[in-house]
Amino acid sequence: MTDLILHEYAPSGNCYKIRLTAAHLGMPLDRRNHDILSGETRTERFLATVNANGRIPVLQIGDHFLPESNAACIWLAHGSALIPDDRFDHADMLRWMFWEQYNHEPNVATLRFWRAMIGEANLSDAQRTQIPAREAAADAALALMEEHLGTRDWFAAGRFTLADIALYAYTHVAGEGGFDLARYPAISAWLARVAAQPGHIAITA
Amino acid sequence: MTDLILHEYAPSGNCYKIRLTAAHLGMPLDRRNHDILSGETRTERFLATVNANGRIPVLQIGDHFLPESNAACIWLAHGSALIPDDRFDHADMLRWMFWEQYNHEPNVATLRFWRAMIGEANLSDAQRTQIPAREAAADAALALMEEHLGTRDWFAAGRFTLADIALYAYTHVAGEGGFDLARYPAISAWLARVAAQPGHIAITA
Repeated sequence: MTDLILHEYAPSGNCYKIRLTAAHLGMPLDRRNHDILSGETRTERFLATVNANGRIPVLQIGDHFLPESNAACIWLAHGSALIPDDRFDHADMLRWMFWEQYNHEPNVATLRFWRAMIGEANLSDAQRTQIPAREAAADAALALMEEHLGTRDWFAAGRFTLADIALYAYTHVAGEGGFDLARYPAISAWLARVAAQPGHIAITA
Repeated sequence: MTDLILHEYAPSGNCYKIRLTAAHLGMPLDRRNHDILSGETRTERFLATVNANGRIPVLQIGDHFLPESNAACIWLAHGSALIPDDRFDHADMLRWMFWEQYNHEPNVATLRFWRAMIGEANLSDAQRTQIPAREAAADAALALMEEHLGTRDWFAAGRFTLADIALYAYTHVAGEGGFDLARYPAISAWLARVAAQPGHIAITA
């Protein structure tokens, strides 16, 4: 099997998604840390060789580089039970993964990054003025998840898929962004179901 | 074949992606317009029956509803040449589709919506303060596309795929958001290649 290298910043939920997917599949990853706080993903070398978009995670597959966390999970889980075969279920899983990147991550993950990693006192004025809108959008995203999980155990296909992994990554640490998960009983029960899956690993693993 | 209904707002690039994919595949779509400017996607009825997330597009497949434009394109193009079979090429196509929703659409499409549809004079203060950051992010997204296309004809797999359709939708109307595409010769040549594909239809079709 081709060597797999994960270019990452370990506390990032987007990087954790890839490690969690690989753990479920029993696929070993060689991990290379890049400190985003000190600009290590914006160096000329990183931009030229790993990702011209200046972001982690990037999954390196031999001499191929694959940015975008959810695309990397799809590559890893190719042909496995984490990806439904059924045409609708497959698209519905991707629907939640696109939704995660558009409606969830820019709000839930960004507020965690600003509050728990940069620190509110160190934010720029431009960042600080965005907090109310991002909080409202994050609350709406969590409310939509709560409603969906009120009548279902999993996001798509009636079983544990990559959609659950993608949404688990930043939801389970939403408390670090200032969100009270106790207000969302269906989400809380789903988080426990995900963590109880055989092969699960923690974000700190 | 199951009847397909596209719940849409016709000028939206996200809705156009789905029509363009269906046109390439020769699949007829029944179109239902919802005026987002007058809140037709936030009514109780829309939220309860079409999309609890209050957004278009939604592809209705019989009695199944599929939100998220790129997921709908994946459903439509299932088993077609628009989706590569190869494991890396498939993930790389999705990489560009996730990138489109995260880095491109929130900037290029939002500025088009604000300037060409709402009108700058009608923006809220909160929206107006976001313009410089969204312009910078849109410029960065267009620059990344220009660099990628400097040495390639298509985004993924060495041929026309859903990644090209997803990125064409808002890029070809970026001028309406205030961007000068003449500054991007490789993007301009790629736009012409996409528009020359057999089966192509315009956003106004």
